[in-house]
Amino acid sequence: MSAKAPIAFAARESKQAIEEGLLFAPKFDEHGLMPAFAVDSETGAPLMLAYMNEQSLKMTLELGQAVYWSRSRNQLWHKGATSGEFQEIIDIRTDCDQDALVLRVKQHGGGCCHTKRPTCFYRVVKTADGEALLEPAL
Amino acid sequence: MSAKAPIAFAARESKQAIEEGLLFAPKFDEHGLMPAFAVDSETGAPLMLAYMNEQSLKMTLELGQAVYWSRSRNQLWHKGATSGEFQEIIDIRTDCDQDALVLRVKQHGGGCCHTKRPTCFYRVVKTADGEALLEPAL
Repeated sequence: MSAKAPIAFAARESKQAIEEGLLFAPKFDEHGLMPAFAVDSETGAPLMLAYMNEQSLKMTLELGQAVYWSRSRNQLWHKGATSGEFQEIIDIRTDCDQDALVLRVKQHGGGCCHTKRPTCFYRVVKTADGEALLEPAL
Repeated sequence: MSAKAPIAFAARESKQAIEEGLLFAPKFDEHGLMPAFAVDSETGAPLMLAYMNEQSLKMTLELGQAVYWSRSRNQLWHKGATSGEFQEIIDIRTDCDQDALVLRVKQHGGGCCHTKRPTCFYRVVKTADGEALLEPAL
């Protein structure tokens, strides 16, 4: 990834261009965010879901490491910058309407989740007698 | 899944209970929505990202098929009800703070995406000379 030229995104033109074109024209929501779903590039295992704003997405593309926008801290969140658990980007995919991202990453450090588990999705939802309960995912 | 008792979700108590407990206490955003990421249960391939509100999540748990909330049409969206491309739920996982879902599904019909592709994530984001471009994902 080139170091100096700031990365530009395309304008959102027609539905046809957004769905079938080869210009990246990401759509951010009213808070300026889009969801980014990180999965393990080797196993496909889901790791975490977080959000990016335009700045963090451009930083991610430039760095080759995941940079999110922390909604709770209201600031850029270069994952792993302090913990060492950074996410090396293998590739980034966008969907038909370009309002969501899948990051295929190599997870470094001890694991993805702040609970020290390898994934944030460590529980399965079950229903029993009208109640929704969680079980550890295998 | 039992047919008659309406499914109840738990209240969100402490951070400890939300992260480590076995009660399902999903968090919906200010629009009453949470992101739901559908992946192929056999291959792990990412299929689509959509949103659920409380009603559609309960319907999903009751039916065993994905029911989303369409933000563009502002109505329940039982995927495949008209097209046959429904998503059979294998399991549903939630994350540490219970504000996102991963649906492991068996995709029926021709494919997941309205463009007739098997996945909505059919393009990879690349950068070249300061421009962000898309390439078909392999």
